[in-house]
Amino acid sequence: MMRTSLRRLAIMLWLAPGLALAANIPSTIRDDAKQLRQRALTESNAYAIVESLVLEAGPRLAGSKGDEAAVAWALLKLEELGFENVRAEDVEVPHWERGETRVEITAPFPHRLVATALGGSFGTDADGIEAPVLMVTNIAELEELPRSRVEGTIVFFNDRMEPTRDASSYSRVVRNRAYGPSAAARLGAVAAITRSAGTSSDRIAHTGSLRYADDAPRIPAAAISNPDANLLERQMQLQDVVTLSLSMTSRHLEPRRSANVIGELRGTDAADEIVLIGAHLDSWDLGQGAVDDGSGVAIAIEAVRQIREAGLRPRRTIRVVLYANEEFGVSGGKAYAEKYSDQVAQHVIGLEADLGPGKVWRFDVRVAAKALPLVEEMHKLIEPLGIARGNNEAYGGADLVAMRDLGMPVLGPRQDASLYFEVHHTVNDTLDKISREGLDQNVATYAVLTYLAAAIEQDFGRLPPPDSE
Amino acid sequence: MMRTSLRRLAIMLWLAPGLALAANIPSTIRDDAKQLRQRALTESNAYAIVESLVLEAGPRLAGSKGDEAAVAWALLKLEELGFENVRAEDVEVPHWERGETRVEITAPFPHRLVATALGGSFGTDADGIEAPVLMVTNIAELEELPRSRVEGTIVFFNDRMEPTRDASSYSRVVRNRAYGPSAAARLGAVAAITRSAGTSSDRIAHTGSLRYADDAPRIPAAAISNPDANLLERQMQLQDVVTLSLSMTSRHLEPRRSANVIGELRGTDAADEIVLIGAHLDSWDLGQGAVDDGSGVAIAIEAVRQIREAGLRPRRTIRVVLYANEEFGVSGGKAYAEKYSDQVAQHVIGLEADLGPGKVWRFDVRVAAKALPLVEEMHKLIEPLGIARGNNEAYGGADLVAMRDLGMPVLGPRQDASLYFEVHHTVNDTLDKISREGLDQNVATYAVLTYLAAAIEQDFGRLPPPDSE
Repeated sequence: MMRTSLRRLAIMLWLAPGLALAANIPSTIRDDAKQLRQRALTESNAYAIVESLVLEAGPRLAGSKGDEAAVAWALLKLEELGFENVRAEDVEVPHWERGETRVEITAPFPHRLVATALGGSFGTDADGIEAPVLMVTNIAELEELPRSRVEGTIVFFNDRMEPTRDASSYSRVVRNRAYGPSAAARLGAVAAITRSAGTSSDRIAHTGSLRYADDAPRIPAAAISNPDANLLERQMQLQDVVTLSLSMTSRHLEPRRSANVIGELRGTDAADEIVLIGAHLDSWDLGQGAVDDGSGVAIAIEAVRQIREAGLRPRRTIRVVLYANEEFGVSGGKAYAEKYSDQVAQHVIGLEADLGPGKVWRFDVRVAAKALPLVEEMHKLIEPLGIARGNNEAYGGADLVAMRDLGMPVLGPRQDASLYFEVHHTVNDTLDKISREGLDQNVATYAVLTYLAAAIEQDFGRLPPPDSE
Repeated sequence: MMRTSLRRLAIMLWLAPGLALAANIPSTIRDDAKQLRQRALTESNAYAIVESLVLEAGPRLAGSKGDEAAVAWALLKLEELGFENVRAEDVEVPHWERGETRVEITAPFPHRLVATALGGSFGTDADGIEAPVLMVTNIAELEELPRSRVEGTIVFFNDRMEPTRDASSYSRVVRNRAYGPSAAARLGAVAAITRSAGTSSDRIAHTGSLRYADDAPRIPAAAISNPDANLLERQMQLQDVVTLSLSMTSRHLEPRRSANVIGELRGTDAADEIVLIGAHLDSWDLGQGAVDDGSGVAIAIEAVRQIREAGLRPRRTIRVVLYANEEFGVSGGKAYAEKYSDQVAQHVIGLEADLGPGKVWRFDVRVAAKALPLVEEMHKLIEPLGIARGNNEAYGGADLVAMRDLGMPVLGPRQDASLYFEVHHTVNDTLDKISREGLDQNVATYAVLTYLAAAIEQDFGRLPPPDSE
């Protein structure tokens, strides 16, 4: 608490107008960064990288054949592009199969709905489930109801998601998907249905993982598309009782081996200090994983390739990590932190690209207060890309959370998420949804930040342990 | 030929500037039409009608349960809204079931594609088909190839459809869907795949009927979504041989009974003369049939209801026909023409709404030359709705073709089709795709035209038989 207040004070002081501070980044490095920025914008090969990934590996859910193909692809690609110390580091991943999902309104007016299992859901018996529907907006509304109202029903979480640049609406509705099924089960529901946690008006359902709680039965759960949710909602407005049938064959299998795939640009006089840049290699099974997170994979790889192609060889080692299984339990991020737990202090900074190819519009960070002046200087070098300076509370990315909680500071360039949730976790996550312009602005941003972090003398301090936040 | 030239001359004369012609429509009728136009724009109930149809009957492919439900719905709705002589007239319809469609690229890079059977396609054996792919743009390109190139392949018709207001791009690409499979089979292909005949970049496949020719084997045929077509195309650009597997369970069943559902606003002193307004009641099975042709059903019903609600009772009978099975063989339109073949001369004019709820932007007609001055006057009364005057070569609508070929003239208000082919014949054809504003502009247009045609003394002449065109 104390520490946070001090940090706030430091930020306020820093932001006070007219306050003069010494420049921290040498002009040669700044000049190199400017050239790199320009080069990355015009000579980026990122689109070809994501195209190659989605074409050759395709969808790559943890434990699937596509996942295997993606690991092989990544090793080959990093070698081919001249990375050093290219390697795959084993990660155990859960293995779940979606199977078939069939959801129908059975009364009063029968309709088959477009639906898909939530990631990790158990299936139904072969006979399926048929029960009356209980419609609520969210978990809070559900939990105000007496058990007698919920028992034996299929709970329909019906919260609409509006497009937002900062993904805040997703943070709200995703709670229904993640925690709704157990909240419903705790009150006796037999299954749960969620309105898709996405903004699309297409007849496609959004998947994503649920989190079964230990104190509730593990009931089956599926998402239905927004137009189907509208239809169900309308029937419920007009009729006293609406019944739904649900049949799902999804199932959990034995865990499998996957891998974090790693490549480096070795540093010079501080080669044991690491600037960590990454994205996740896995994807959901429905789409091609082009946007989530093929674009991030391409951004991370290409940003570092641009640094090398520009003839730059910074003093710190730049390590690209393509994480295993972010989507279904963040296995790769956790495994990395475990494997390198004795080298956390050598990780000067981390960054990840995992919010699609929308242009970066704000530069958040989470660094020690002493490093904030440095961050401001770094920001000046990406500001021409249309990027505003943000806060010191960056999330950083799901795969960095474990390292961040061990003290590693993070840089958090924020992608414009306005279009991201049109396709995120759906069949529509395909190559054609990627804007080259957005992708390359990301490459330039990540290249400059990564280069600067690796080239300078200064560090970003360490973060307090999470419990003191 | 002679007749056409004379008609052209008549049009040219009419269009000659400064040519004065006597007004044909009495001012009382014109005043009523103006009030009707305003009333229909502001008090339209069309959205509620299409909502009720898609909610209560849902998708309604000929011969399906939804089709039955739609006939029952229509009878009830027309009665409820005060139509006269409400009746269902039996129509025999073909009965086809889509079943499951599974299309996969099997080599070099395996991908499951989003696909759906073309309407009327036969299925495959249980083992499916696996064969190398031959990619062509269209039938003409295919037919330039030697049989040896085509034999044993799966032909992939890969013509991209761009959005157009006048639906002209659809007219081009739909030939691949309708006639491509037989063209491929004639050269020895084992199956056919078409890029979806739609403009959507969603991962949804567009269905629609194919026409098997008598002189070719009836090979299975499916459409793949545009993003999937991109993926297949890209693999073919990069690789010498791409193989595809196709498995389909679609099948033809025994014909069933469906019905044209009819309701009237009886005329006064010319009650035996008929102004025919309609839309088709059936839809494809994938979506809700909201746009195609729920919107047309609502436009036709509501246009006539508005006339009655305005207290108008024109001299001719206005007959609303909701046709059976347009999508899969135009059964209803043909049955109507057969049943009323001895009363064709009493059908003063026909119009249909079957291009979605986009605003009418042009007013085409197909009438005798003598009626063109009358048409110009009618146009003046819908011009304030933003509608330009078009040609004398209106199509009229699929369900009117049989009557038109027997001499019935048609009015052809043309809907803006720019968005229509985003959802047409796909799962995305749902209620939320309907713009109320567009729908109500259609209601106003159809109400005014229908009222005028029924209220005036003049007629529109007769059309020449099609072979003399």
